[in-house]
Amino acid sequence: MTERNYQPGEFYDYPLIIKKLLNTPLIYAPDQEIVYRDKMRYTYRDLNERIHRLANALEKKGIQPGDTVAVFDYDSNRFLEAFFAVPMMGAVLQMVNWRLSADQIIYTINHAEAKLIVINTDFLPILETIREKLDNVEAVVVIAEHGTIPETRVAIDAVYEEMLADALPEYAFPDLDENTKATTFYTTGTTGDPKGVHFTHRQLMLHTLSAAVALGAYETIGRFRSDDVYMPITPMFHVHAWGLPYVATLLGVKQVYPGKYEPEMLLKLIANEKVTFSHCVPTVLQMIATSPSAKACDLSRWKVIIGGSKLSRGQAKAAKSLGITVYTGYGMSETCPLISLSVPPKQMKDWDEDRMLDIVVKTGLPLPLVEFEVLDDDGKPLPHDGMSAGEVVFRTPWLTRSYFKALEKTKALWQNGWLHSGDVGHIDENGYLQITDRVKDVIKSGGEWVSSLDLENILSQHDAVLESAAIGIPDEKWGERPMMIVVLKPDFVDKVTPDDLKQHMKQAAQDGKLPKYGVPDRYEFVDEIAKTSVGKLDKKVMRRLYR
Amino acid sequence: MTERNYQPGEFYDYPLIIKKLLNTPLIYAPDQEIVYRDKMRYTYRDLNERIHRLANALEKKGIQPGDTVAVFDYDSNRFLEAFFAVPMMGAVLQMVNWRLSADQIIYTINHAEAKLIVINTDFLPILETIREKLDNVEAVVVIAEHGTIPETRVAIDAVYEEMLADALPEYAFPDLDENTKATTFYTTGTTGDPKGVHFTHRQLMLHTLSAAVALGAYETIGRFRSDDVYMPITPMFHVHAWGLPYVATLLGVKQVYPGKYEPEMLLKLIANEKVTFSHCVPTVLQMIATSPSAKACDLSRWKVIIGGSKLSRGQAKAAKSLGITVYTGYGMSETCPLISLSVPPKQMKDWDEDRMLDIVVKTGLPLPLVEFEVLDDDGKPLPHDGMSAGEVVFRTPWLTRSYFKALEKTKALWQNGWLHSGDVGHIDENGYLQITDRVKDVIKSGGEWVSSLDLENILSQHDAVLESAAIGIPDEKWGERPMMIVVLKPDFVDKVTPDDLKQHMKQAAQDGKLPKYGVPDRYEFVDEIAKTSVGKLDKKVMRRLYR
Repeated sequence: MTERNYQPGEFYDYPLIIKKLLNTPLIYAPDQEIVYRDKMRYTYRDLNERIHRLANALEKKGIQPGDTVAVFDYDSNRFLEAFFAVPMMGAVLQMVNWRLSADQIIYTINHAEAKLIVINTDFLPILETIREKLDNVEAVVVIAEHGTIPETRVAIDAVYEEMLADALPEYAFPDLDENTKATTFYTTGTTGDPKGVHFTHRQLMLHTLSAAVALGAYETIGRFRSDDVYMPITPMFHVHAWGLPYVATLLGVKQVYPGKYEPEMLLKLIANEKVTFSHCVPTVLQMIATSPSAKACDLSRWKVIIGGSKLSRGQAKAAKSLGITVYTGYGMSETCPLISLSVPPKQMKDWDEDRMLDIVVKTGLPLPLVEFEVLDDDGKPLPHDGMSAGEVVFRTPWLTRSYFKALEKTKALWQNGWLHSGDVGHIDENGYLQITDRVKDVIKSGGEWVSSLDLENILSQHDAVLESAAIGIPDEKWGERPMMIVVLKPDFVDKVTPDDLKQHMKQAAQDGKLPKYGVPDRYEFVDEIAKTSVGKLDKKVMRRLYR
Repeated sequence: MTERNYQPGEFYDYPLIIKKLLNTPLIYAPDQEIVYRDKMRYTYRDLNERIHRLANALEKKGIQPGDTVAVFDYDSNRFLEAFFAVPMMGAVLQMVNWRLSADQIIYTINHAEAKLIVINTDFLPILETIREKLDNVEAVVVIAEHGTIPETRVAIDAVYEEMLADALPEYAFPDLDENTKATTFYTTGTTGDPKGVHFTHRQLMLHTLSAAVALGAYETIGRFRSDDVYMPITPMFHVHAWGLPYVATLLGVKQVYPGKYEPEMLLKLIANEKVTFSHCVPTVLQMIATSPSAKACDLSRWKVIIGGSKLSRGQAKAAKSLGITVYTGYGMSETCPLISLSVPPKQMKDWDEDRMLDIVVKTGLPLPLVEFEVLDDDGKPLPHDGMSAGEVVFRTPWLTRSYFKALEKTKALWQNGWLHSGDVGHIDENGYLQITDRVKDVIKSGGEWVSSLDLENILSQHDAVLESAAIGIPDEKWGERPMMIVVLKPDFVDKVTPDDLKQHMKQAAQDGKLPKYGVPDRYEFVDEIAKTSVGKLDKKVMRRLYR
């Protein structure tokens, strides 16, 4: 019953550890379902048993407290099982971004000192090319969801489902120190080696509680509560799918994991499983919204947090026209990730669509236990006037303590007791944060700052524009001038000229939405915009291309 | 901006302190109202300013971190201000139960080493009789809500509102260690000296977050969210009004403080201020429900947690007939206090009234981060079968670490790493706890346990019964036999006999709701039932009387 002997009068110093989170759904919703595509369906009771089996199996394979277990998988129930079992036994879960280059994957696995790999057979071709270069990996477990294991040079130690079936269904998870490291993954900068961020049990627990309060106890347009049905559409390897699988589990909601992101399958799951709550990047929203099946699907109960890149007004309006409730969530790999939500407060409920769109595309209000400021060049906080822009800095209980084994980078991250985001933004008198740029992407024209996000947002409101990116290109007179890289909607190709778009931007400047010097001179039409492995605009590549 | 210098790369170890809770409502709901009776009305922005002024004023009166400030007041905005200002400056808030005897009040104030007293002028007559015996009190601040200060022998150092008006509106609240003691008060046992319980910043913060999730993010009949209007009707001196003023503040809801509990004023506030969420003991619910104005008042939006004593089925039904949503909350002074809520899970929403009544009168399901068990005489957990009764024990992050300066009592409280409640109960297969008795009140007839709460609950369903108490009286043959002490409803006095009630109990035994040996032999009609200072049945007094 207790893990150790307690003296009479000695109190139990209840730790904030992930094991404790699991108690609530097992009482409130033991029979609630967890679904993986059209392939698997079980209850929270089963989830709990599989977590216990997984821990036993990993222990048998030599995993000890402090060891790292790396997982390569699509969004699945297996990943969810690892979210709990690995940290609960005192080990560290590494979520591997399989979209990285082979060299980067080798780097991250060696840097994290992963000892065991759990991998979907679909990714075995990657592992095959890098296996020999992995310094600490002693065992490979495969997830064979297609039933068979393809021929491979990789030595395979176990098959996931067989390993679970063979393991005991009871494991005595220890009472860990709440500051024990629970998870790690690597951020995908556009320069240098990936940087390892990491989170403790306490950090994940407080992130979960705060998000549950912000999304559940506040009356807003985008609530997430025990009667919702949850399906993440941001990768589970990326900041634990924004930490929301932990919130979903605490609430005991039905959870649906979609595997790969195929628009038809996603829409099918939304319809058949009655999904009401998701989160994704703008590109995925667009992919779903423009899918042929979307119009036939009732999306009026679907609430979606958009993050990763800025939700444009045009995208929000298009989603709204399909009945989808969208709003912005903001955070970074370094922040676990949730920092803010653009949920309109109660008094805004009756606002008309136009005013609501202005709110939902904002970066948002801080979650409980989140503080942010914008700093000037001297590190002093700027006024909350909706104008004064500077670097955005954070304090919350769930920020990575450091970049793992990277002291110099950590020194740039944590300055004066604030985490420095590398984002530029301003805060208005109501406390709304608005990110306007990355520090490194900001365009400086004639000494004035031009926000690339503002430019992209205004251009997205032109009927012909599917997607755009603003970058600064060197200019002899002004230092830099903004230019736009544009993907047109198929119907408008060859029907719209750069000058049409420039007229649109000029009009915006006349309407006071943009300074005059901010109107870009150059508009380049392309078929596709360069993106990073997690789907963000890759401006470094674009700047090189158009310089 | 920061409280101390941080080295480059040094992270900010965000503490769970009450100061941080206040940030959220100031952003989400700065203009929301806080109301005190028909006497005062201001915004959260004002609350924040008054908290800063109060801290400055207390510091000027010599209050330092670690000092104790004792407050004697009705439920008011002043108490709410003290809930924040005193702990936020690192001092300890003592909530004084002014219903205790003069000797007990002297004991608690001296034992807590209170240095300053804030007192409503209504309570000056008490202070007058005890002032000389208070060892550490250096200053007395009066709350003069009637405008004038009555003549008194007590030396008065300041008047609350004047003191605030004179103080500076900015105070640099420190970043405390989250394990700093924040609040203390004394439990009112029926034997021995009052026992001091105490809670830290971390404990209050986690209690607040968990309660906000349980009441907000779960779809239940009794939710508490940002669009509710809150009015506590359990004293703020008693376990910080169940900690719910902290939850209300986090949510930024409108808060209404009723002062003294006068039924007409309470109903007026419910109607005029549109109160939707409260909590009280059964006696107060009954007082309100039977008030002449109740029928004219629309109570259909009013949700009330009932705690302190068992909510009987009869009371729940009567409340329901007035449109009130009631359910049970359970906790103790030692537990901060919330442990469980009888909120029916989602799948029960469509149940008929009878089945719902069975649920709402249960002790309930644990809040997130709460664990409970029932133990047999050897300290082993009993099966969750809805039958096996034993002492109820708890683990959560918000249990008092000890009885202050009372090692022997603490040794009885904390055994084997579990807080021992002194309550007897059982847990059913769905995880619902049901308290059936106090360990010391349990009736042992012929070696079998008879639950006094079961007897009271069954008898409450007789039309004639307003209130009842079951006690064990010595019996030569059986050891003890149960007897009932009964208050009849006014219309039934002289029309109902003890034998009528015995028939009712016999019928319940025939229906399987009660063991046959549990049917009481003796039924004593009284005008009033003995109660403790916080309104609980005082069975010690009754046992002495009827032995």
